[in-house]
Amino acid sequence: MTRARIAGVGMTPFGGHEDRTVRDLFAAAAREALADAGVPGGAVEEVTFGNFMGEFSEGQGHTGPLAAEAAGVPAPSTRVESACASSGVAVRQGLTLLRAGEADVVLVGGAERMTNLSTTDATEALAAAADAVWEARPGVTFPGAYSLMANAYFEAYGGTREDLAHVAVKNHANAVGNDLAQFRTPIDVDDVLGAPTVSSPFGLYDCSPISDGASAAVLVSESYAADHGLDAPVAITGTGQGTDSLALGARESLTRTPAAEAAADAAYADADVYPADVDVAEVHDCFTIAEVLALEALGFYEPGEAVSAAREGETTRDGDLPVNLSGGLKAKGHPVGATGCAQISELTKLLRGDHVNGDAVPNAEVGVTHNAGGTVASAVVHVLEVVG
Amino acid sequence: MTRARIAGVGMTPFGGHEDRTVRDLFAAAAREALADAGVPGGAVEEVTFGNFMGEFSEGQGHTGPLAAEAAGVPAPSTRVESACASSGVAVRQGLTLLRAGEADVVLVGGAERMTNLSTTDATEALAAAADAVWEARPGVTFPGAYSLMANAYFEAYGGTREDLAHVAVKNHANAVGNDLAQFRTPIDVDDVLGAPTVSSPFGLYDCSPISDGASAAVLVSESYAADHGLDAPVAITGTGQGTDSLALGARESLTRTPAAEAAADAAYADADVYPADVDVAEVHDCFTIAEVLALEALGFYEPGEAVSAAREGETTRDGDLPVNLSGGLKAKGHPVGATGCAQISELTKLLRGDHVNGDAVPNAEVGVTHNAGGTVASAVVHVLEVVG
Repeated sequence: MTRARIAGVGMTPFGGHEDRTVRDLFAAAAREALADAGVPGGAVEEVTFGNFMGEFSEGQGHTGPLAAEAAGVPAPSTRVESACASSGVAVRQGLTLLRAGEADVVLVGGAERMTNLSTTDATEALAAAADAVWEARPGVTFPGAYSLMANAYFEAYGGTREDLAHVAVKNHANAVGNDLAQFRTPIDVDDVLGAPTVSSPFGLYDCSPISDGASAAVLVSESYAADHGLDAPVAITGTGQGTDSLALGARESLTRTPAAEAAADAAYADADVYPADVDVAEVHDCFTIAEVLALEALGFYEPGEAVSAAREGETTRDGDLPVNLSGGLKAKGHPVGATGCAQISELTKLLRGDHVNGDAVPNAEVGVTHNAGGTVASAVVHVLEVVG
Repeated sequence: MTRARIAGVGMTPFGGHEDRTVRDLFAAAAREALADAGVPGGAVEEVTFGNFMGEFSEGQGHTGPLAAEAAGVPAPSTRVESACASSGVAVRQGLTLLRAGEADVVLVGGAERMTNLSTTDATEALAAAADAVWEARPGVTFPGAYSLMANAYFEAYGGTREDLAHVAVKNHANAVGNDLAQFRTPIDVDDVLGAPTVSSPFGLYDCSPISDGASAAVLVSESYAADHGLDAPVAITGTGQGTDSLALGARESLTRTPAAEAAADAAYADADVYPADVDVAEVHDCFTIAEVLALEALGFYEPGEAVSAAREGETTRDGDLPVNLSGGLKAKGHPVGATGCAQISELTKLLRGDHVNGDAVPNAEVGVTHNAGGTVASAVVHVLEVVG
């Protein structure tokens, strides 16, 4: 089986790009990834592209061809849509094409435009990731759904708003030096606790923002990397995907995310690594509780035990397992279709040693990304390793 | 490389299902496919699902998890969206998972709900498959775009409305016996020429209808089929995908479909067959001209020569190469996200010998499907063979 090297990565800054379309944003990220890889656009054999809400923000579906055209890549191109996991799944599908021998060079990535929508319209568009019949129609929005999960967690295991506040404080601190991040201002626990309530227990700082942005990566087979003398020390050695019922109400528990557990188990087995081998992680902290659930699903903590991880300093930049050194969705921003591949981009730089926060993990060899869609109805996990 | 067997297929009738949701429709098709295969839902390892306009018709994105749940399959599930080629691409991605060794059993398919929308709203939803900036915003709809292609074809090569009418007459005739088809009434050339104009040169009968429906197939590795004693004589031996600029205006020619040519070339090479080997084809006749362009892209005719094929009887049920024995999109119906895999379902039955029109091709061994998105900005071609 072909092992996929990450030959290059690219990202736009995340935040407000009111004057730029999805195609403009992806063009920038894709061309940066190709340049970083030293691979010409004409060498790309397939494109897999994640976009979630193009129908709502631009009246635009069928974005596969648009993405290829924007990237300057004349290759078959497919849009995959898995809500906020769209580009994580796009990475997985590009990887699968390499492993199947269908291609030696694939361009993967995603883009989202959100800030041209009003907050109401963006909230309604995001609700299309929930079950329209059982959730969206009765009025459940994502802050509401995740607050149900947070309250259930507190009820089952304990934990407090202050615990969650430390997640936000940590991720904002990590974003300060990251010039791709949307929010680069440090905050403290009092800021989080004093912010306006969005949906109890969440205040404003417990929630990731509305963002525009794009991300891309060039994946190549080992043989292509060798034949073309590419400097691509990081490989994707494991991939896993999981799916749960779309509606929260159909699940056994609100405090566990079995789709992410399944994705993590599959990715670890694929890479033949264990949670204890992981040096650094980028996880899907769309809300502060989501980072807690991710750390448990990834096997770093037993259920009920990750809520204090940030507060105890275990996941801060100086902790044993730095999490979301990029700033995470919370502070780096969350243009939903771009998020999964942005995690790949940030983690690749952390492992290569050219990330602004790379000094926090100077000897890191194994990293993990965790990207979720909806209330973790979809999850995709990748293991990245420095393979020299 | 694993060769994928088509272990089972399923389809709802296409047409008006005003009281059924996308999930209901897919549940029916998927469960029929699993029963046809004799494979339990629990054996499925991945699901790939095509849906195009769920955001418009149901306010529903993130349909991967919904599809798996509806099918009773607890497996990772991904929505792919490539406009009217969505489930053709879903078939290709499921096949790729088998070839990569990621799975031995995949459920592929698609579903669409359209008739709950007004004609205006459905037309606007369909326009999301075109370029929002350069086509949809200025007012181009799909009948308009394809009529530009038809008029350009007439200008370049000759051909008449009567030639195209024979395509509609042929496909309606094929649908008469197909109880899954939306229109089962025979029509004649005068009916087509006398119908109200939609967009010159197209009258009503040159256009495929608005439809609801779902399709599914179970693909298994050769080893799984052998180990479980499955009766699965048909294999997908070739796959190809192509992409073109989304907007017609960016193309060199309106009379050729290079995305379909690329997809066909790749699929034939993959299967090691030639156009002359093909016994039967299901092609994407969303408009009558589209069937003509498909036959040329598939290499059955030189450019400019397929327009008379139906009139000459070459592609009728008694012709040398029967095309759209199912009735095609024209008469079977075109629930867009379901169409690509429905072609696989119909062709599998034709090759297995259990299709109502199977007597037209009693010794067929090689078949081809051609599924297109937009104005063939996306195309996917599959070669199916009886391998015993």
